Formats: sequence, structure tokens, C-alpha cells
Amino acid sequence: MSVPSRLALVPFISVDNMMRFVLHIGVERMLVELAQEIEADFRRWEHFDKTPRVASHSEVGVIELMPASDGELYGFKYVNGHPANMHAGLQTVTAFGVLADVATGYPVLVSEMTFLTALRTAATSAMAARALAPTGAHTMAMIGNGAQSEFQALAFRAICGIEHVRLYDIDPAATRKCAANLAGSGLRIVPCATAEAAMEGAQIVTTCTADKQYATILTDNMVGAGVHINAIGGDCPGKTELHRDILLRSSIFVEYAPQTRIEGEIQQLAKDHPVTELWEVFAGRAPGRTIAQQITLFDGVGFAIEDFSALRYVHQRIKPTGFYQDLDMIADPDDPRDLYGMLMRAKALAG
Amino acid sequence: MSVPSRLALVPFISVDNMMRFVLHIGVERMLVELAQEIEADFRRWEHFDKTPRVASHSEVGVIELMPASDGELYGFKYVNGHPANMHAGLQTVTAFGVLADVATGYPVLVSEMTFLTALRTAATSAMAARALAPTGAHTMAMIGNGAQSEFQALAFRAICGIEHVRLYDIDPAATRKCAANLAGSGLRIVPCATAEAAMEGAQIVTTCTADKQYATILTDNMVGAGVHINAIGGDCPGKTELHRDILLRSSIFVEYAPQTRIEGEIQQLAKDHPVTELWEVFAGRAPGRTIAQQITLFDGVGFAIEDFSALRYVHQRIKPTGFYQDLDMIADPDDPRDLYGMLMRAKALAG
Repeated sequence: MSVPSRLALVPFISVDNMMRFVLHIGVERMLVELAQEIEADFRRWEHFDKTPRVASHSEVGVIELMPASDGELYGFKYVNGHPANMHAGLQTVTAFGVLADVATGYPVLVSEMTFLTALRTAATSAMAARALAPTGAHTMAMIGNGAQSEFQALAFRAICGIEHVRLYDIDPAATRKCAANLAGSGLRIVPCATAEAAMEGAQIVTTCTADKQYATILTDNMVGAGVHINAIGGDCPGKTELHRDILLRSSIFVEYAPQTRIEGEIQQLAKDHPVTELWEVFAGRAPGRTIAQQITLFDGVGFAIEDFSALRYVHQRIKPTGFYQDLDMIADPDDPRDLYGMLMRAKALAG
Repeated sequence: MSVPSRLALVPFISVDNMMRFVLHIGVERMLVELAQEIEADFRRWEHFDKTPRVASHSEVGVIELMPASDGELYGFKYVNGHPANMHAGLQTVTAFGVLADVATGYPVLVSEMTFLTALRTAATSAMAARALAPTGAHTMAMIGNGAQSEFQALAFRAICGIEHVRLYDIDPAATRKCAANLAGSGLRIVPCATAEAAMEGAQIVTTCTADKQYATILTDNMVGAGVHINAIGGDCPGKTELHRDILLRSSIFVEYAPQTRIEGEIQQLAKDHPVTELWEVFAGRAPGRTIAQQITLFDGVGFAIEDFSALRYVHQRIKPTGFYQDLDMIADPDDPRDLYGMLMRAKALAG
């Protein structure tokens, strides 16, 4: 009918193109580079317009919008969390996002973010562990072997130098799937029959379970001194993975306290329980791990700035790859006040 | 590389396809049907999960996310407001939106919403006027002849029976553009040299100016008894169109008071100044206009439920028209826990 103007077009990265892009960069290299981008943004944390995510809860799940802006770019992510989806053959978490130019308000990128979220979550976890885990950590226990697990394992290998990963899931099929996917990754993978067995000799424990019903993945007696816990499965009100007593023994690090107090493990604690925001560690405002016996806990729920960093990273690199398509998304009449005239001209063209 | 599954695909309505759809339905018929959808949702207002929109302000404009859900469907709109865009040949307001299934969290529609917002805003204004304007109103003054103006005029013709529209804009070129576009619409159009002249004999006054700098479009002496004011240009903090004294003489109707008190004309008034939410009128909980001499004011800022209604309307009707394209937006591995395996299989397929 009519030919869209250049201003009307917004690059869109489909799932297929995102996979091409990730494979083009390489999974581990992309995890390393995403962690660099996120860390750089955490260092300038105070520049950002931040807000806890806007959540719409239903009985079966949650739909969230996560906006962030640094004054030049604005990004937001749409993400759902529906634990029962898996049983219907659907993803528990799917996501897409948009990056926009603050000066004009025009979107500059629309992207799938299911893959990108898995990558940025793993990059953030490993970035936190690099600052918090004990020196020389080489073994990680991974409790929960679902969609996040391989990305976590590869990020901890690439960013923290982890060599051994000990797997446990209440469903042995998930463990088999994870072990098979990580064969050939360079990691030594050990499937375990219990969570306790998975934690033997581990300096880092990652919990990434999805289901609301398994509320306590780790009990207090399972966690020894000096361990770093990377708890990323508890990320909505009522959903936690760790027994409260573990929290009371831990130095707790969070992304953005106002959001984590609602969604994270620390919803089990008093509202004024001391926590450190991770950016403070990277900006040199607060210490990370200080002594060997310390239990450090990253209570990760995912924050909008991580998505912002990931969208910007992709936006900066996508054009030369060609792994995108242009969407005719912005109505752009010749005279900006003549939106109706644009419609009438389209009618005339259609005859 | 890989063929997306059926679940991965989300229908997308481009600007071009939205124009085809609007022309297929017919502008006035679509305005009437949108007003019916919006009124039906206003009647069941209390069913909705409501939140004031989430705004990110900068010196040059605002980017907003506007979510709403009725428990079955969830919708949100991304919309910017950048008054200086016009001088750079860009739209002041552009928008797109998403409708999703609450049960799964999966998006079911992505759509341009610059056109759809113009249509739903006009439908909402005319719907409000049908309940609030004096009986037998036939003449409307329209102050501000920008991108919204033709849609407003056509909605008031189709929904309220307006026959005469008197135009005024500080820029005569805008008035000429609006008058030319409305020639042949069946409306009698009268371009006027001043705002005062435009208001002669008008029972309804619509103010739809975009620029923050023209703060007072209507002064108190311009507004006589019995008039209905449809004020839709003031829609962000610091941006108003009416002198405060007019507000003090008016019965004020708003969409959602917590949002309008921040963004609307009533930001000039005390926080507890009485206002009526429009849904209360349609649900029979509050009166509309009660006496002929009353000045009624619809302080319209645009609310998320109107976008929700509009997205649902389009979603219900788009499939048979074919005016959409499928986007591969949702990563959908065969085993929902095997997101990483999906990537590896894509790699294998690519050789």
C-alpha cells in the first residue's frame, strides 16, 4: 500500500536471529562480554533511573515490565513467570525487550529476550561470584537443572574459572539433559542423587529451581563455612529456596534492595535486615568477601539494568551481522501533525 | 537455520497493516466500535488490575509503560511524548503495544499503536461527552489542530452527533491541514483566527495542544455556563491547558484519579479536590451532567484500560483480514527446560 519511511523501521531480532547472533559471538565469549557490560553499568549505578519492576500477578504466574534508563537510552523488558507452563510444554519464562532513544522516544531495537535473559542472568551471577566467592573456588554445586543451568555453568567456567559442576534436580531427567548438554564444554560434570551429595566439596552453590512448591531447597545444616551461595530461583513474592537460618548466617548481596525485599530470599527477613547492593562492591563503596569462613549470598532476582546492558550490547553489535529484520512499527507521516492525512493517502494509493 | 514452532509466533500489526485494517473497518465505524469496547470495560472497571503508568521523564520528554489486566488478558502500551519532536520532523507521540494471555504469560499480539492511540483517545473523548455534554450539542470548538484533531472531530460526529467544528491553532498551517483533511467528512468546518472566535456558539470545547510552553489555552472569561470541556492535551506533570479558575467552576470527570492528579489539569488543584471517575457514571454509581448551566470537564490523560480495550478489539478482528505478519518472538524448545539444547541444535543445523 505505502512504503514505510526510514524512521518507521525498527530492527527486530527474532529467536532464530538471536541464536545465530549468540553462535556467531560464541556462548562463553558473549557471557564474558555481557558481564563486562553489566559491571560497567553497575559502576555507574547512580546515573540510572531505577524502579522496582511493575508486576501483574495472577493465580498461575506473573507478567512483569522492567524499565531502566541512563538518560541516553531507555530499555524495558516484558517477562512472564509461569511455573506450571512446563507441564503444558511451554517455557516457564519468556521475554522480549525494547531499547529506545531518550532524546526522541523512538524505539531503536526490539528483541527476543528469552535467550538474552538466560545469558544476562548467568553473566550477572558469575560477575557477583567473582567478587564474593572464596579464592581458588573450582567446584560448583548446581541445585536445579532446568533452562538456566547450562548458561550458569558456562558463565562460572568462563568468568570464575570453575572446573567441576555437581548437578542435582528432583527430576533425574533434567540432570541427564544438563549433563548431556555440558559434555564437551570442558567442565567436569558429576550428576548426584541428592542435593547433599551435590554440595560435597563445592565452594559455590547455585540454586536455580523454578517451582513455587519446593520452598526450601537448602537447609541450614547443608551449608558450611566459607561457601558462596548463588540463589537465583527465588524471584517472586512467596517463592524462596533457602531456609531462613542460612540467611541469618550469611553476608547478603542484592541487586536493588527495594525490589529484592519483595521478591528475593530476604523477604523472609526483617525489612531492615542489612544487605549490600552489589553495585557498591564494584564501585568500591562496600567490601565483598572479607574473610575465608564467611558465607556470602547473592540473592539474585534479576534487575532491569542487566537487561538494559544486554540490549545495548546486542544493539551495538547486531547491524554488521545482518541478524535482524526491520519492522514497520512507527507511524511516520511526512508532516508529523498529519497522522490522519497519512491514512487518507494510504487510502488513495489503495485505490 | 531452524523452523520456529507454532508457539513461537506472535502476530504483529505493522503501521501499514494497521492502516489497511482501519480503512477496511472504516474510520467512523471503528471509532464507534472502540467506544463500545471501552465503555464495556469501564462498566466492569473493578475487575481490572490497575496501576498508574510507569513514566521515565527526561528534559525533552517522557517514555511511559501503561499496563492493565482483566485476569484473562494482559495488555501494555509503550508510548512517548516529546513535544520538540515535531520541529525535527518526528511524531510527538508514537506508540506500540502488546496483548498477552494471563494463563501462560505468552504474548498473543504485538501492534503499532500510534494510529490505535489516536483512535482510542478520540473514542474515549466522545464517549465521555455523550454522558457529559449538554443535550442537543451540535457545535464543537477545537483548540489545537495537530495529529489528534481529525480523529476527535470524526469521533464527535459519529458518537455525539456534532455537525459543526470550529478550528483554531497558534499555527494557521495546522488549521489549514485539519480543515483540508475534514473536507468531505460531512462536518461543517470553520477555521477561526483566535481561540475566542472558535468558541463562539460551541457547546463542546476540545483542547488538544501538544506543547508544554503554551500552558494556558483557555482563560476563565472564555468559558460560559453549560459548556462541556474535553481537555486532552495536558497529560504530564507540569503540562496543563486550562486556567485554574475554570477548574474551580467545573464538575470534573477523570479516568483514574491517582494518575490524573499527577498528570492532568487537576494537578493545579488540591489533592483532595472532588472529582468523579468516568467509570462511575457508566456503571450508574455517579451522575454525569445534572443541570444545563453546569460546566462539565473531562480531564483526559489516557488510561491503560483504553489501550487494553483497543488491543483486544483489534486482536478479535485481525485474523480474518490477514493484515498481520507472524514474528518468531518466543523461544520454544521441544523440552521447555532445554533452552540451551535448542541453541546447540540450531548450531548443528547450521553445520
